[in-house]
Amino acid sequence: MPRYAFRVEYDGAPFSGWQAQRDLPSVQGAIETALGRLDASFAQGARIAAAGRTDAGVHASSQVFHADLLRHWSPFRLSEALNWHLSPAPVAITAVVPVGEDFHARFSALERRYSFRIVARRAPVVADRGRVWHVRQPLDVDAMRVAAAHLVGRHDFTTFRSAMCQSKSPVKTLDQITITTHDYPAGQEIRFFLRARSFLHNQVRSIVGTLERVGVGAWPPERVATALAARDRAACGPVSPPQGLSLDGVTYDPDPFA
Amino acid sequence: MPRYAFRVEYDGAPFSGWQAQRDLPSVQGAIETALGRLDASFAQGARIAAAGRTDAGVHASSQVFHADLLRHWSPFRLSEALNWHLSPAPVAITAVVPVGEDFHARFSALERRYSFRIVARRAPVVADRGRVWHVRQPLDVDAMRVAAAHLVGRHDFTTFRSAMCQSKSPVKTLDQITITTHDYPAGQEIRFFLRARSFLHNQVRSIVGTLERVGVGAWPPERVATALAARDRAACGPVSPPQGLSLDGVTYDPDPFA
Repeated sequence: MPRYAFRVEYDGAPFSGWQAQRDLPSVQGAIETALGRLDASFAQGARIAAAGRTDAGVHASSQVFHADLLRHWSPFRLSEALNWHLSPAPVAITAVVPVGEDFHARFSALERRYSFRIVARRAPVVADRGRVWHVRQPLDVDAMRVAAAHLVGRHDFTTFRSAMCQSKSPVKTLDQITITTHDYPAGQEIRFFLRARSFLHNQVRSIVGTLERVGVGAWPPERVATALAARDRAACGPVSPPQGLSLDGVTYDPDPFA
Repeated sequence: MPRYAFRVEYDGAPFSGWQAQRDLPSVQGAIETALGRLDASFAQGARIAAAGRTDAGVHASSQVFHADLLRHWSPFRLSEALNWHLSPAPVAITAVVPVGEDFHARFSALERRYSFRIVARRAPVVADRGRVWHVRQPLDVDAMRVAAAHLVGRHDFTTFRSAMCQSKSPVKTLDQITITTHDYPAGQEIRFFLRARSFLHNQVRSIVGTLERVGVGAWPPERVATALAARDRAACGPVSPPQGLSLDGVTYDPDPFA
């Protein structure tokens, strides 16, 4: 069966997450239903596989999945047909390419890139409601950067891992946490960029939620190093809400979309 | 009565526009209702005045209005109380200052600044749905810039003015149209920045809608000069949809918010 790789953008708000769940709306379910209009195997329960199983409310600007179809398609027509059947759900196929049977969206991925947006201001958030975490006080970005530096590299991230995490090992290598600041009306926007081969369940939100504690001054930056070393979920700060998080890219070698 | 100037941000989607209209939701109406919870004169029908009366679906990151209240307020408490009563409407007070009786949000304004966002890509828009005009083909930005240059300066803008426009004169001075391009997943974002002392009704959307015709190649750039010179509404391109437009700033001298 010909295999295709897809890039997909979605707004996580109306979904219970990427992963298909019985009786709950999921991004995977929406895409598989749309594929079922084009391909009998999906009408009969075939599944797609994604690079990252994002949680409820988490967005993606560039998630990747693959699907095996019964017949060959022109990538352009396949993309147009899928977007037609996905409408009006906030899910858009932004690229389609044929790939070999050795390509697997999840297991071939060499790197995932996530971003997280915080808007720090007293006033309610309007324009970016549902796309940012609204924090009602200024954040000390320099302190957050000092704290974040403790997390870069290869570590046992048990502290920053959901109790539900199914990963075999809590040891991961975090290649990058960059924190940038941006003008925002009546406040400031803070963006976090995280890069790793793979992430544990809730790892990004656990890290951002902990760094926010540092940003408001509730935690000294060094407490993040202590929390990491504790390898204890109870040492983690509060997990951030989901709506600031977005899966922004997945790296493969070779890049099927190049 | 003490007068206050307010900066306000709103999402235009759920409103029939800024201006209060009987039986239709308006931004002005939402704010006056919230003020009515704090001040008896607004409970009895007092009105606010804004710098720009934005149309249905048009957003603002920095609209300005003023209100005369029966008593003195600390700006912080006034802002907090108003935002409390505005919730959950997508309207946020981002600044409040006391001003003199000679300050009028509309008549004292020296300049209005609008931006307009287009996303040009084949795939549906997801993340910025409701905040951008989605155009399904690439735009020739250089051609749009050549065309836009014809509109800068003092002109009779009859061509680019709604038939409903109540302005006494169609002659306005457009101080700036800048067009910038930005990376966007699977496409390109184009932003327009327009600056003038004041604008005619539908002027920005008429200009952007006409420039889009140039961008897709349907109009040569010179046709915009011809259309302007015609001083004829029929010579205008299609008016753009509202959701890409945002009122981003109003200038006063002295600046009450400084």
